[in-house]
Amino acid sequence: AHVSFSAERYSEDEMIKRSKEFYELLNKRRSVRFISNEPVPREVINNVIKAAGTSPSGAHTEPWTFVVVQDPEVKHRIREIIEEEEEINYKKRMGDRWVNDLKRLRTNWIKVYLDTAPYLILIFKQVYGMLPNGQKKTHYYNEISVSIACGLLLAALQVR
Amino acid sequence: AHVSFSAERYSEDEMIKRSKEFYELLNKRRSVRFISNEPVPREVINNVIKAAGTSPSGAHTEPWTFVVVQDPEVKHRIREIIEEEEEINYKKRMGDRWVNDLKRLRTNWIKVYLDTAPYLILIFKQVYGMLPNGQKKTHYYNEISVSIACGLLLAALQVR
Ligand SMILES: Cc1cc2nc3c(=O)[nH]c(=O)nc-3n(C[C@H](O)[C@H](O)[C@H](O)COP(=O)(O)O)c2cc1C
Ligand SMILES: Cc1cc2nc3c(=O)[nH]c(=O)nc-3n(C[C@H](O)[C@H](O)[C@H](O)COP(=O)(O)O)c2cc1C
Repeated sequence: AHVSFSAERYSEDEMIKRSKEFYELLNKRRSVRFISNEPVPREVINNVIKAAGTSPSGAHTEPWTFVVVQDPEVKHRIREIIEEEEEINYKKRMGDRWVNDLKRLRTNWIKVYLDTAPYLILIFKQVYGMLPNGQKKTHYYNEISVSIACGLLLAALQVR
Repeated sequence: AHVSFSAERYSEDEMIKRSKEFYELLNKRRSVRFISNEPVPREVINNVIKAAGTSPSGAHTEPWTFVVVQDPEVKHRIREIIEEEEEINYKKRMGDRWVNDLKRLRTNWIKVYLDTAPYLILIFKQVYGMLPNGQKKTHYYNEISVSIACGLLLAALQVR
């Protein structure tokens, strides 16, 4: 089914004002590593994921899966898995140069916030899909498409 | 210099409302292939690019370059280069399967809109950077980072 295209129209002054305010809002985003445990309505999480799901994608393949985790035990198990892998990343896989480039960010493999945050949103790229006949369906530019969707997700999180 | 973090706080009802409205706004975005030639203030273009530039990036490398083209002759030259490459893509590089997957989108290599649009925003990923001493600087996850920035750009274009 086709949905006809319609776009809100604003005056030049309004466009300038709106685009400036949106820049200022996004400019407040930060990759924080300390996260409040304050509850957030589940509906907000659903809406930001729906916003991400409007993303463009190569050949309209929509190659993303968003998984929301709320159960404290599952969150903790995820933290354990990530910290185990990240410790190996920092100590072995990344090498001296990469670890050195990260020094000024003062990040490490300990991620307490994976327990504290009320929700984790895990984002998966579908490297390929499945056709009804069981054959693989190519997902063109899947990593780019999912990353654009992550940009929309971040914008939606910043707006709410 | 460090900038301290501050976030607007909304009530639960407001968060639900804001996130729903933002989803509905993004859901109106479409990859259009017919573009109006109506002028747009340059300041709006600057603001949406500034919004994109707030994107997170691997190890804070900001591996993107945005180029705005307004000159009709430069736009036309770009159209010629892209159409030439895209014709080869459709006829040779992509192969039957890919071209077939694109059929229902009814796209092709003719891109009139590259002349009509008042501006083209060309987006480049910097695969690596340059240190003051002339050595290469690694840009970790540069494609993912630039794609997230594109998501923010699309959101900003949709808001204005
Ligand atoms: C990585 C990527 C590559 C794309 N390549 C093309 C392209 O070469 N030609 C084109 O017309 N559209 C292209 N598109 C647009 C998609 O076809 C479009 O996003 C998809 O059909 C969904 O439609 P929508 O963006 O209107 O929601 C591309 C989109 C993405 C994310
Ligand atoms: C692709 C990508 C990978 C990242 N990887 C990590 C990471 O492993 N650990 C971490 O603490 N931050 C990570 N970050 C966050 C960056 O360090 C952060 O975006 C950058 O320092 C800029 O800060 P800002 O997001 O607050 O603007 C990543 C960001 C991106 C886009």
